[in-house]
Amino acid sequence: MTIDTQILRAFRECGEGSVSGAELAEELGVSRAAIWARIEELRSLGYEIDATPHQGYRLVSIPDVLHADDLLARMPLNQIIGRDIRVFEQTGSTNDIAEKLARDGAVEGVVVFAESQTRGRGRMGRQWLSPSRKGLWLSVLLRPRMRPEAATQITIAAATALARAIQRVCHLDPEIKWPNDLLLKGRKVAGILTEMSAELDRIKSLIVGVGVDVNVERQDLPAEIEKTATSLRIESGAAVNRADLATAYLSELDREYHRICAGEFAQIADEWESKCVTIGCNVSISIGNRQIVGRAESLDADGALMIRSPHGHLERIIGGDVLLEK
Amino acid sequence: MTIDTQILRAFRECGEGSVSGAELAEELGVSRAAIWARIEELRSLGYEIDATPHQGYRLVSIPDVLHADDLLARMPLNQIIGRDIRVFEQTGSTNDIAEKLARDGAVEGVVVFAESQTRGRGRMGRQWLSPSRKGLWLSVLLRPRMRPEAATQITIAAATALARAIQRVCHLDPEIKWPNDLLLKGRKVAGILTEMSAELDRIKSLIVGVGVDVNVERQDLPAEIEKTATSLRIESGAAVNRADLATAYLSELDREYHRICAGEFAQIADEWESKCVTIGCNVSISIGNRQIVGRAESLDADGALMIRSPHGHLERIIGGDVLLEK
Repeated sequence: MTIDTQILRAFRECGEGSVSGAELAEELGVSRAAIWARIEELRSLGYEIDATPHQGYRLVSIPDVLHADDLLARMPLNQIIGRDIRVFEQTGSTNDIAEKLARDGAVEGVVVFAESQTRGRGRMGRQWLSPSRKGLWLSVLLRPRMRPEAATQITIAAATALARAIQRVCHLDPEIKWPNDLLLKGRKVAGILTEMSAELDRIKSLIVGVGVDVNVERQDLPAEIEKTATSLRIESGAAVNRADLATAYLSELDREYHRICAGEFAQIADEWESKCVTIGCNVSISIGNRQIVGRAESLDADGALMIRSPHGHLERIIGGDVLLEK
Repeated sequence: MTIDTQILRAFRECGEGSVSGAELAEELGVSRAAIWARIEELRSLGYEIDATPHQGYRLVSIPDVLHADDLLARMPLNQIIGRDIRVFEQTGSTNDIAEKLARDGAVEGVVVFAESQTRGRGRMGRQWLSPSRKGLWLSVLLRPRMRPEAATQITIAAATALARAIQRVCHLDPEIKWPNDLLLKGRKVAGILTEMSAELDRIKSLIVGVGVDVNVERQDLPAEIEKTATSLRIESGAAVNRADLATAYLSELDREYHRICAGEFAQIADEWESKCVTIGCNVSISIGNRQIVGRAESLDADGALMIRSPHGHLERIIGGDVLLEK
């Protein structure tokens, strides 16, 4: 843990109170001058920090930047997810960075954030716009001991975790559209892209990427998606602190991931189904050139969607473009 | 296509006859001196080439090296697999090189060979010995439009293609042990490692790697695998030309791959089943901590093994360590 992370963690632990520079210095085993230098550095990053003689330092406000030291300071110490956090000012795609870390042998739980992506993507290599500092574009590296066909469980867990984090932080109530979208009032506010590297019968590494339109404003939306997309800021009417949302999501995801590893996916599926706009709907799903029509009934044990055809036949679907016909 | 590839192709087309330097020069649009220089270069690589005034050049013998220009010259022009061939003197793992090419956007059909591997591996990250110039260690990059769970089809196709190539070139009759081994007299002679990069419902790229103990000699085998491993040379009693075997395998694999893309996997499965030592046997399969016992009955449409338990229940297995109990 860096000294900055430890200082920010100390601020966080004392709530709105002050932290003594002398105590901090002793605790961290550095000089008071070194603490002062780090405080100056944090100020230069946009942290507003008061210094009062005999009382110490007090954190007044934090800037709207994603700062690895700050994010690490916010993470519970026993979490798998978020025990290592990397923030990039700009990258092609956070999934690609996480994949490279996976190849280089990184442990599971590493999280990659970018303030902007130049080649953000959704399913099937589709473009995903990632304007600078307006959203959360992040990827988590996991190494679940599961078969490739069970990977849908992780997408379902991520959707559930993200919906819960948005409820907690923004007091909005997103719906989930199978397999990988979050909607507010029928408009897309977030998407999930799960990618894996696998042998036939085991996942070697899995990257779950999310893109959330957090503080995107109406005028930021390109004309072609203006009617189908939205953001947390547009729907709530207020700017959202991205670090708060990121922290909430990673904690929720960590909880869901432990459940999956413990074989308790069914519990996640129940919560997911209650938030899901797809279940109970008549749907039309495009898979390549094929079109499947029917009623979405439930998720199976691996997170696949079970569709009842008009003839009563039950079909198992693991992905595709879903059109809802309520 | 390089000039070397074109010269070697011309030699191959004329069988044991001679190729006129003047005609070659005209055909390839270079000077006779340039042809002469390339012939000298090929000689320095170990090619034995006679030059007779008024008759031209004649290829007498080729060295036992893997030479990309030579391998390309042997490939039928309309094949997907082998339209680009890279040979490395030494590499960590050919699957890793092919994976990197895939990430960099290489088209499907690229083949990576190595004369030796320092980190050759089998399933589950197990070590695979790859002594220099004694075997075929190669990986093929494919981009099949299929779901991750159908990838077993490719392993089945590769096993079938490799068994057929060994029959053609070495007149030996390997058995296949599901999912990924080739045996001669019950001993392992080759293994297949299929790895993929995928979204939940589509493969982005798939690498099918094979390791064949071609000219490995008995004294090359480490004590711990001496009783379970063998080589084509040990079983046939003669050295095998590795380029002949590689070419035969790539052509057979290309044919099988076209069948899979045309939806004709069932035909491959039939041939595979006839060569398979696993089908019809009582088997014990370890999958992580789980043990499955039963009779191997058949392959399903995706290449998974169907096991009939002692209680009559049918179970679908996509991978694991198989112990045959004939």
